[in-house]
Amino acid sequence: MSNNLETLRHSTAHLLAAAVKELYPKTVLGIGPVIENGFYYDFSFKSDFSTKDFSKIEAKMQEIASKNLAFENLTKNIKDAISLTTKLNEPLKTQLINELKTKGEREVTFYQTGDFIDLCTGPHIGNTSDIKVFKLLSSAAAYWKGDEKNISLTRIYGTAWDTKAQLDEYLVKLEKAKENDHRKLGKELGLFVFSDTVGQGLPLFTANGAVIFRELERFIVDEELSRGYKHVITPPLAKVDLYRLSGHYPYYKETMYPPMKVDQDELILRPMTCPHHFMLFKSEPHSYRELPLRLAEISPQFRYEKSGELSGLMRVRMFTLTDAHIFCTNDQVKDEIVKALDLIDFMNKVLGLKKGVDYRFRLSLGDRSETEKYFKDDKAWDGAEQVLREVLESGNFPYFEEKNEAAFYGPKIDIQIKNVSGKEETAYTIQYDFVSPKRFDLKYSDDSGKEVLPIVIHRSSIGALERTIAFLIEHYAGKLPFWLSPVQFEIIPIAERHSSYANEILNNLLKKGFRSEVNNKNTPMGSKIRDAQLQKIPYMLILGDKEQAQKSVAVRTIEGEDLGMLSLTKLLELVSTQIPLHS
Amino acid sequence: MSNNLETLRHSTAHLLAAAVKELYPKTVLGIGPVIENGFYYDFSFKSDFSTKDFSKIEAKMQEIASKNLAFENLTKNIKDAISLTTKLNEPLKTQLINELKTKGEREVTFYQTGDFIDLCTGPHIGNTSDIKVFKLLSSAAAYWKGDEKNISLTRIYGTAWDTKAQLDEYLVKLEKAKENDHRKLGKELGLFVFSDTVGQGLPLFTANGAVIFRELERFIVDEELSRGYKHVITPPLAKVDLYRLSGHYPYYKETMYPPMKVDQDELILRPMTCPHHFMLFKSEPHSYRELPLRLAEISPQFRYEKSGELSGLMRVRMFTLTDAHIFCTNDQVKDEIVKALDLIDFMNKVLGLKKGVDYRFRLSLGDRSETEKYFKDDKAWDGAEQVLREVLESGNFPYFEEKNEAAFYGPKIDIQIKNVSGKEETAYTIQYDFVSPKRFDLKYSDDSGKEVLPIVIHRSSIGALERTIAFLIEHYAGKLPFWLSPVQFEIIPIAERHSSYANEILNNLLKKGFRSEVNNKNTPMGSKIRDAQLQKIPYMLILGDKEQAQKSVAVRTIEGEDLGMLSLTKLLELVSTQIPLHS
Repeated sequence: MSNNLETLRHSTAHLLAAAVKELYPKTVLGIGPVIENGFYYDFSFKSDFSTKDFSKIEAKMQEIASKNLAFENLTKNIKDAISLTTKLNEPLKTQLINELKTKGEREVTFYQTGDFIDLCTGPHIGNTSDIKVFKLLSSAAAYWKGDEKNISLTRIYGTAWDTKAQLDEYLVKLEKAKENDHRKLGKELGLFVFSDTVGQGLPLFTANGAVIFRELERFIVDEELSRGYKHVITPPLAKVDLYRLSGHYPYYKETMYPPMKVDQDELILRPMTCPHHFMLFKSEPHSYRELPLRLAEISPQFRYEKSGELSGLMRVRMFTLTDAHIFCTNDQVKDEIVKALDLIDFMNKVLGLKKGVDYRFRLSLGDRSETEKYFKDDKAWDGAEQVLREVLESGNFPYFEEKNEAAFYGPKIDIQIKNVSGKEETAYTIQYDFVSPKRFDLKYSDDSGKEVLPIVIHRSSIGALERTIAFLIEHYAGKLPFWLSPVQFEIIPIAERHSSYANEILNNLLKKGFRSEVNNKNTPMGSKIRDAQLQKIPYMLILGDKEQAQKSVAVRTIEGEDLGMLSLTKLLELVSTQIPLHS
Repeated sequence: MSNNLETLRHSTAHLLAAAVKELYPKTVLGIGPVIENGFYYDFSFKSDFSTKDFSKIEAKMQEIASKNLAFENLTKNIKDAISLTTKLNEPLKTQLINELKTKGEREVTFYQTGDFIDLCTGPHIGNTSDIKVFKLLSSAAAYWKGDEKNISLTRIYGTAWDTKAQLDEYLVKLEKAKENDHRKLGKELGLFVFSDTVGQGLPLFTANGAVIFRELERFIVDEELSRGYKHVITPPLAKVDLYRLSGHYPYYKETMYPPMKVDQDELILRPMTCPHHFMLFKSEPHSYRELPLRLAEISPQFRYEKSGELSGLMRVRMFTLTDAHIFCTNDQVKDEIVKALDLIDFMNKVLGLKKGVDYRFRLSLGDRSETEKYFKDDKAWDGAEQVLREVLESGNFPYFEEKNEAAFYGPKIDIQIKNVSGKEETAYTIQYDFVSPKRFDLKYSDDSGKEVLPIVIHRSSIGALERTIAFLIEHYAGKLPFWLSPVQFEIIPIAERHSSYANEILNNLLKKGFRSEVNNKNTPMGSKIRDAQLQKIPYMLILGDKEQAQKSVAVRTIEGEDLGMLSLTKLLELVSTQIPLHS
């Protein structure tokens, strides 16, 4: 996104606030930042408001914009600033100024357009007349400062672009993202549900959703075992002491569940697996001969996410990470990272993602000057960053570098995947850790019998299963690959006289391990086909007199393709190419 | 166990206390009940004590016994009783009398043998001279009343029998149980560890232990899927409200972890899966056509067990139940219970257990008069008990009945399995539930469109995986069946020149999915064979010149059997019979 576009959007947010204040003068303003592809503004409305008012507000914005108003910068000392926001009846702005004062600020800036004045650091475009292409999109409730203890505000989302063509293209994308939203599709396809009585952010997978989970889990476990990983099972909770030792507690306390007092101890649900794997490593002595030692786990983890940040399976309060920790010597690090990248490439391919198109790599570096955020050891950082860079350079790994994105304990490689609206997100990472081995006193004896520290590589192969499932549902618009489809074959007998043949086919397919069902409902063929399409079942097998006589099935795909009459053997030959093989 | 034996053992406990008081006069007495196969007595020693003193105490017990002392009953009112225990310096006994007083008792009984007097309801044998065959076995720390907040006492365990032959037989059994103890074998075979930093009762499975877990899990999931179960995945925690609705909270609060405050809600780790499956059932409307609906899950659950009751994988604070809830009509109940029993029979056979020898069935009935313990609905109880009895009568299900062992919500069938010391324990159950459907307002529409309540059957197929693994380790003395063995083939090259052939065999076996490893250590053949035996690896493949030349392997079993030279094909044919097939 260009800076100009950012400035334009931020200026449009001001325009929105100005329009709202004109139409609903008693409204109290929150904040109005730029976000990806647009902006929002938070309001405390004192009168009724609904998205039906959007056109009215948009018209008012248009009207103000056409007045050719300049964005004028006003700088004021704290005292004058507070007088101003008090006069404007903007208590939330006054609160923000007081906070700036506490932080040591002596002056703050405002921007004025016409009568409208807003606390703001800028920058802005020169004149409101440059705002031509914008649209209000949606509204949602949001707590002031994202904190449930504060008052609830109305957040209005909008977007702004340089040209009408850009806006239209964006709206089409948005519509597609809405249609493919895994929350919507998950409901339609009956893959998972949430329950108020169970709790927010805690999905319940139905039998169909659990199929996807299980297929992914088994595939990755088998693949990792064949690549020399050792799969272990450790408990998803531990004494708080374990997380004091790792340094997570109390620093990451805010994102952890509260401790539970059990006997004399305090137990806590784990936010990550590493300390558990470290305790397993420490449970026996190790020789250099055993390294690299790759401990892997399909690991349930718990993080407290604010309720406003929860989103279907993407952002949950419990997730299942395909996790691993590789203990190795300095000499082995490079090779192990290459192998981890190779596994990720392999698995992404299995999931149908194209390298360089659907995903790329990010080398996330630390900022040495931020000693609070990053462990202080310049030499180790230099070495580790060099290793990661060399690995990325050495193979076919399209990457870019980003400062200030490392983990506390070392630099990392992030796998950046594009979601259905084209937004790039970190899906999984490979982290170089030279801090934890010291902290946990992990040791192995080298070839001279001396005890030395290993390096630990933290990595995930396909991320959190919940999130990966959400991503795949959106990526495939619900039409999952054959091997992940909850139901693979829908058998449709044309008339009642074909139902015993339908059952014969069903049992045959079930015995061979294919998830299949017969639609025996008393509905017309067309409606049965539509049902199967709505359920995104990859293959429909239609059975009539001819098929029964010739011991075959008429095959129709979810894409509407008619494959004609096939024997079961031929059909299974055909689908066998759609079942991924292990490396 | 005969009542006489119980009386004898309880009398021997008195004898132990009398001997301890003579040898260590300042000792304070706790309680001394009969347990399976023996008794214990809790003491607060004021002087040093160790199990080295057992022979001295046994000699003193022998000496007192030979004095031909009668067990005389003394009945006293509360006041006199307290004077007596105060005079005897037995503050814990005084405490017990005060508790009896609070409960409304007016008199208590003591038994006296010689100078020794103990608070006790009896009955006892006539004379100490009848106590001839006894032995002190071990000692352990135990809290007064099992509560960690109380003082710690020394518990001395002992046994007593009618004849020396019985005692000897029991000691041999005990020795075998000790040798097969899964805690000892689990350590020796490196299957799981516990960590003080992680927490008590929370096992960490190593890669080898996780193999057993995974093989069992996958087998049972696939078997259940093929039998029409729908495997789901639900979160292992929920709002406390869910357990208020089910009635577990606050009644079973003592065995649950404490709640965690998250936002405005209280979350709690689940002690059972049923409420989660009920919420899934409720998430959509159901027709009679969908029934029986069988929701299954490999379900992590959390129960707070007192630290003194924790025992390896047998008694843990988190376990993974092979759980299911079958929603069905009244007419389907019988058939569904038969099917559940059939699955249990099948799985027990797969695990190598013989019906009628290793396990039998128990029909656990409720006591209608105990309205606090059992839901009040005589008609429903009568009906349900009759159904379970008819099912057990109708097939090959050796069973017995037991009163007062039902669940709160209905009668059940318990699968009673004999452990390595011959003790019978409830391993898993099938429960008939006519209460929860009402409580959770579960409904389906019948063939006339009317909304009616289903019956719920709670059942487990192979119990908690942790416990089942513990049982199997003990049952097989660590020599697990081939399909569950963490390492199935140990490849032993005789000399270094055979190591490339060894790797060829290894890769061949790994590719076919067999867990195999090469022993490349620089140690003699004999020691390599011993290593494999200690690790209880079912097959050793020994490779020398002859084997290499003939592209074969020399096979030795864990039992020491020499199967001679075999081709890999022949070998795999041989072991294929040891891999269980699905039904």
